[in-house]
Amino acid sequence: MLTPFRVDTNSLAITGRLNAIGYDVGSKVVVGDALDDLVRVFRTNAGTADLIVCTGGLGPTEDDVTRDALARLLDVPLDVDQEALQGIRARFAARGLEMPAINRRQAMVPQGATVVPNTHGTAPGLLADWGGTRFVLLPGPPREMMPMIERLIETRAIASGHGGLFRRVLKVTGRTESDVDATAQPVYRRWTSDPVPITTTILAVQGEIELHLTATAGTREEGDAALGQAASALKDALGPSLYSTHGEKIEAVVGDLLRLAGWSVAVAESCTGGLLASRLTDVPGSSQYFDRGVVCYSNQAKTDLAGVPPAFIEMHGAVSEPVAVAMAEGIRERAGSTVGIGITGIAGPTGGTDAKPVGTVSIAVLAAAHRKVRTFRFIGGRELVKFQSAQAGLNMLRLLLLERAV
Amino acid sequence: MLTPFRVDTNSLAITGRLNAIGYDVGSKVVVGDALDDLVRVFRTNAGTADLIVCTGGLGPTEDDVTRDALARLLDVPLDVDQEALQGIRARFAARGLEMPAINRRQAMVPQGATVVPNTHGTAPGLLADWGGTRFVLLPGPPREMMPMIERLIETRAIASGHGGLFRRVLKVTGRTESDVDATAQPVYRRWTSDPVPITTTILAVQGEIELHLTATAGTREEGDAALGQAASALKDALGPSLYSTHGEKIEAVVGDLLRLAGWSVAVAESCTGGLLASRLTDVPGSSQYFDRGVVCYSNQAKTDLAGVPPAFIEMHGAVSEPVAVAMAEGIRERAGSTVGIGITGIAGPTGGTDAKPVGTVSIAVLAAAHRKVRTFRFIGGRELVKFQSAQAGLNMLRLLLLERAV
Repeated sequence: MLTPFRVDTNSLAITGRLNAIGYDVGSKVVVGDALDDLVRVFRTNAGTADLIVCTGGLGPTEDDVTRDALARLLDVPLDVDQEALQGIRARFAARGLEMPAINRRQAMVPQGATVVPNTHGTAPGLLADWGGTRFVLLPGPPREMMPMIERLIETRAIASGHGGLFRRVLKVTGRTESDVDATAQPVYRRWTSDPVPITTTILAVQGEIELHLTATAGTREEGDAALGQAASALKDALGPSLYSTHGEKIEAVVGDLLRLAGWSVAVAESCTGGLLASRLTDVPGSSQYFDRGVVCYSNQAKTDLAGVPPAFIEMHGAVSEPVAVAMAEGIRERAGSTVGIGITGIAGPTGGTDAKPVGTVSIAVLAAAHRKVRTFRFIGGRELVKFQSAQAGLNMLRLLLLERAV
Repeated sequence: MLTPFRVDTNSLAITGRLNAIGYDVGSKVVVGDALDDLVRVFRTNAGTADLIVCTGGLGPTEDDVTRDALARLLDVPLDVDQEALQGIRARFAARGLEMPAINRRQAMVPQGATVVPNTHGTAPGLLADWGGTRFVLLPGPPREMMPMIERLIETRAIASGHGGLFRRVLKVTGRTESDVDATAQPVYRRWTSDPVPITTTILAVQGEIELHLTATAGTREEGDAALGQAASALKDALGPSLYSTHGEKIEAVVGDLLRLAGWSVAVAESCTGGLLASRLTDVPGSSQYFDRGVVCYSNQAKTDLAGVPPAFIEMHGAVSEPVAVAMAEGIRERAGSTVGIGITGIAGPTGGTDAKPVGTVSIAVLAAAHRKVRTFRFIGGRELVKFQSAQAGLNMLRLLLLERAV
């Protein structure tokens, strides 16, 4: 975290969670893997805060010094915790491996500190109180750390006496940031002076717009009620371009709509190269409505896998709405699914022409009595064009499902 | 910077620039706009560093307290600097505006501090020495801050006696962090006392291991030469599990090997749901060696798209090495590609059994005279199992291409 390369996101996730239970985060510190530095940071910050959360440095190697720093601060020795050691051994055993001797380090606990079990990795966390401050030491990987924070909050090992900051993330697709702001601002500007005040921030993330709402309330119920009303008001103002009122991903929203409709979907992808299928199948239970997809990168593959006639590709060009429609029709028929999606475009960096520059993408979403066909010109590098294309395909499917339901 | 929303990128840009002239960044601190907190951070960090760079809080409003914090630290009053005041007035005049009275604050300078002119905004920077540390106070916006840093380096107001820090990232797959460390440590531990010293940090990222090497050298050539030798030594020690010596992604490494061999690849994916195809096609120019893939999520799709006989799935179970092999054979034959890859597994969260728990994934990579078939037990949530499965498939393909070349 002290190199020019890695952006810090852990502290944002932790801040969000702590805000929600009423902690204001007063400072953040990044230090290297040097024992003296870490002890100094612990010592100088103790007493200034109710809580110090420290992530990382609980691994098995020599540069993992967080345990030692806590022991030094508390001025106590480190002992092997037998229960923690068993847990680490069991994790290796589950993968059919012997625990390497080096991992014994991870079971070392400063005398008097409490072990926090890690359900997603080998490094247990640690809790200790010193100088009026509760120290919470957690492993660095988010997928290990965040479940531990949740459990510490549930068990009130981390708890604050006052009310909290409650947040809600709304997501909008297919509109620009200034367009969203022009529509949303007259709605959200008056909330700051409400009895439960709500502040609103607009962020552009990967070609999408997010509205971050923060309510300051005495209880979760009060906060949630105010946020619920606020979300409804923004939904009325923004219409169906607002697809998420609880931060859900669009693939999850689409999955719920498909399940509700009892529909299935199959995809034929060219420029997205499998990303649309991969995002659809990121959702647990997606096998209920998705059973197949094809990635037809070459023209021959479009013919073989989605039945697009070669003469048809010749006539319209591989990147064209007729070919996208033929891909969608072909995969829908072959899969026997309710909906077929075809995507064909130019992800770049090469392959663009004056008429069809890099970022040109044609998408067709077809059902028996409904269809949506559009051509986009996305901006950005190869991976961003792929992402936006998959996003647009998911959104067209979402809108088609909504219209069907009307 | 203390909310859950805004990612810190300023410190990365500053670190990159400071590294290049030989400063190692030992710690980073984020504090709010509270005078006492800022003074405390200045005071406790002075003496521990040659240089403290502070950005932000030099604006005209009341919550801009960085100037005041420096004055408090130096224990001197703030005076209006006439030259700075003229500069700010001139900036407003250039836009046809009168300077608002509030902006006079920006010309306030602690006695004895040096003003750093701002060519891109109204807030001048400040330089001062205290407690053996040089304090550099800069405005927050990157487009104002970065040119000031450049000029301070040019004029040697920020300068280090030693050369620069040069970095290299190596990546290893298919081994645990402790295993990599056990092998690599005897190699890298002696470099810290070399004429061009190199420090090494080991990180686990998404089921992979990264080795971050940092060389301190007088010139870029010296640094690169030492890093090149170090990378070779680690390559010898770690063998083919080390797949990247310049931070490249495995899909790019595999793409280069495929191109070199003149080979093509086609994929039949179940649990990865298209992720393997998507990652292969993240690489620009991948159409040279990839023309198609199929996502066969259901058993019927495995039969339809990869020709796996239903009786075969019945006999061995959908998640099994024979089915992975049949998928790879089927797609290889249908695509007419040099290599076929089949992946079938249980991504979770449901679908696991005692014999085949969530995370069980069988992968087959087949060419005419070479094949690799393995069953893994990955740990982690649905998306991590998908990622690791795709990674393992790419790595098996890489190893097969390497063996072929021997």
